[in-house]
Amino acid sequence: MATEVRSRVQRRADTVTRLETDVDIWVATAHGDQPHLIPLSFAWDGVRIILATPSGSPTSRNAAASGRIRLALGPPRDVTIFDAATAVVPCAAADADIANAFRRRVDWDPRDEEVEHSFLIATPTTARSWRSVPELTGRTLMREGQWLDA
Amino acid sequence: MATEVRSRVQRRADTVTRLETDVDIWVATAHGDQPHLIPLSFAWDGVRIILATPSGSPTSRNAAASGRIRLALGPPRDVTIFDAATAVVPCAAADADIANAFRRRVDWDPRDEEVEHSFLIATPTTARSWRSVPELTGRTLMREGQWLDA
Repeated sequence: MATEVRSRVQRRADTVTRLETDVDIWVATAHGDQPHLIPLSFAWDGVRIILATPSGSPTSRNAAASGRIRLALGPPRDVTIFDAATAVVPCAAADADIANAFRRRVDWDPRDEEVEHSFLIATPTTARSWRSVPELTGRTLMREGQWLDA
Repeated sequence: MATEVRSRVQRRADTVTRLETDVDIWVATAHGDQPHLIPLSFAWDGVRIILATPSGSPTSRNAAASGRIRLALGPPRDVTIFDAATAVVPCAAADADIANAFRRRVDWDPRDEEVEHSFLIATPTTARSWRSVPELTGRTLMREGQWLDA
């Protein structure tokens, strides 16, 4: 497995499987030159990665100010990394389809929290996936929001 | 395990075990509200986390410009997150003890690479560790570079 070099088609399929089944994702944001990083649970609606965190948290504030986050799915030796354009919406004001998709997947409704939470609605613009050094070649799966053909 | 709430002493011991035995760590940097995040192998000399990556990479450039990185050790449900003051030194110019510690641990000498690499020498200033929501209380293990007492 460690030396197998997957095709782009296989890497995309493996990435989609993780988007459909993994529980947590790494979420990196920035304010100026100050990085922030936490793990969060997520939902995937086929196009967007949906996160929820307190509206006053660094992650929400940074994402709201910049509109950009970076996400890493999987462990370090089987990773897909996304850059994503991100909208931040207070949970109470979010579309029902977003809130329902999140509640179904994560089994938690942030609208019930006493502290206001926001959804981060992240649309990937780039995706790169690799397991090992030989897989660094061919790691780009998505560019400018478009999955690349095989 | 999921509902056990570890003492600070235990979390620090678990963190040190990971620092001494894990292979990879998540490395977040930032430049102008733009987050960057990659996994890298690391060494630990008892005080500093040592990374190596091409000098021209976003991670090296961001860390050199800001002097600050954020690191996450372990999987999302058993994590220690560090903020760290970071020096960036071309590998060829680094002290031998840094280069040797890295080569011994990672089994790779970045001084042998054709593309110039730099060491990121990261001294943690804060450390927070948790496995589950009940563990969010008491997660701070280090503040201003000092491990907290039990």
